[in-house]
Amino acid sequence: MPLDKHSSVPLYAQLKEVLLARIESGEYQPGERIPTEMQLCEEMQLSRPTVRQAVSELVNEGLLEIYKGRGTFVREETKRCQIAPFSGFTFGILSANTLEGMNFVDYREVDKLPGKIAAAFVRNRVGGSPGYSELIWRGEHNRQVVAYCKSWIPKAMFPDLLKDVRLRRPMIDITANKYAFLPQKVETELMVRPAMQNEARIFDIPRGESVIVVTSVFLSRSGDVCEVVNVVLSAKHCSLRLDSSVR
Amino acid sequence: MPLDKHSSVPLYAQLKEVLLARIESGEYQPGERIPTEMQLCEEMQLSRPTVRQAVSELVNEGLLEIYKGRGTFVREETKRCQIAPFSGFTFGILSANTLEGMNFVDYREVDKLPGKIAAAFVRNRVGGSPGYSELIWRGEHNRQVVAYCKSWIPKAMFPDLLKDVRLRRPMIDITANKYAFLPQKVETELMVRPAMQNEARIFDIPRGESVIVVTSVFLSRSGDVCEVVNVVLSAKHCSLRLDSSVR
Repeated sequence: MPLDKHSSVPLYAQLKEVLLARIESGEYQPGERIPTEMQLCEEMQLSRPTVRQAVSELVNEGLLEIYKGRGTFVREETKRCQIAPFSGFTFGILSANTLEGMNFVDYREVDKLPGKIAAAFVRNRVGGSPGYSELIWRGEHNRQVVAYCKSWIPKAMFPDLLKDVRLRRPMIDITANKYAFLPQKVETELMVRPAMQNEARIFDIPRGESVIVVTSVFLSRSGDVCEVVNVVLSAKHCSLRLDSSVR
Repeated sequence: MPLDKHSSVPLYAQLKEVLLARIESGEYQPGERIPTEMQLCEEMQLSRPTVRQAVSELVNEGLLEIYKGRGTFVREETKRCQIAPFSGFTFGILSANTLEGMNFVDYREVDKLPGKIAAAFVRNRVGGSPGYSELIWRGEHNRQVVAYCKSWIPKAMFPDLLKDVRLRRPMIDITANKYAFLPQKVETELMVRPAMQNEARIFDIPRGESVIVVTSVFLSRSGDVCEVVNVVLSAKHCSLRLDSSVR
């Protein structure tokens, strides 16, 4: 496809489209080296600065990568960690079989909740201690942080939870005699948004790269909300596996 | 927080951090106007170009928006369309109750499948006509395209499907006597990646903005794959609602 020197579209932009089409069609495969600037100049009858601008924009957009002294390559997909099976229950503390392997960053008592989380608990009618246990942990895969999780659990339901977690008591003991307060249903919302500053730092990704945010509200057998979990996942580091069957 | 004029971090970068912290803490609310360049110059004791550079980078990163003559505003989240309930079954043709409202872009017979799709069908043992029906449709919400879906269904199982779709036959007729070939289980993978050129065009988003890609493999009662669906969703236009219960 020759470029149109009389078009109002600049030549570098036309070349960019040609290179993109080649990447998207698979003519240039992920991980493969593309022709050198000189070769592109010759093939397309373009000047060096024109070729350079097209290539450098594709580098900025993350489609190409330059390795000094080796050439320009089509960027390969990051190897993703598959979270399988994934459901709203996956990241719940109260629905976990064990707390072992949970990489706690912090856990503490809080009285005030973030607005959206407080809204989820608003209809609760359980009497007892006010306040919540807030637990924060990271999920890692091959030393890469892929998940940053926060959970809130009412102290009225699990007054000793923080002590239990500190002592690493088995889940079976933590949930003993708590049948009415264990999660039975979960309502989960999943959305994608740009990473905020602190998230970018946690995942070591550029700010503005996408994160997947999963918010789960757990309903206990008593009909009250027993836990709310907010999970932020680095979008490029993971995929989710959701399976289901007809009843 | 005063800026540090002796730091090796440029002043515009320091100011950017301050503005970001104010956005993330909610001091500057979404949709709200931030102080003018002049006001920021005075408050921070900075030159106009310094302030301008910080603001223009935040505009480029999508956190601020400039409305000519009105000022600079914290960008508001796009109103999202919630896909509820969402499961691997949601976008299947064979698991749909009706084809009404499906905005078909194209449907045709194909012999060759994209590599990943072909891999899903490779173990099928159903005899009959070779080839697949390929159906392409869009999901819209308030005139915004939010989903771009492609489905492949073996002709060996549903030889008349394209005719049925063309005639808008009710699903109950299409699936009559096809009990063994109806989906019973679905295996679904969800991941997020930057939009490709054609996807950016379909959703009217900048190339490189995120899309959610959901690939579902439907297994029929006969144990064969009866359908594979690939759905691309514009990440900023939608959220997914996944609910589940303990058995």
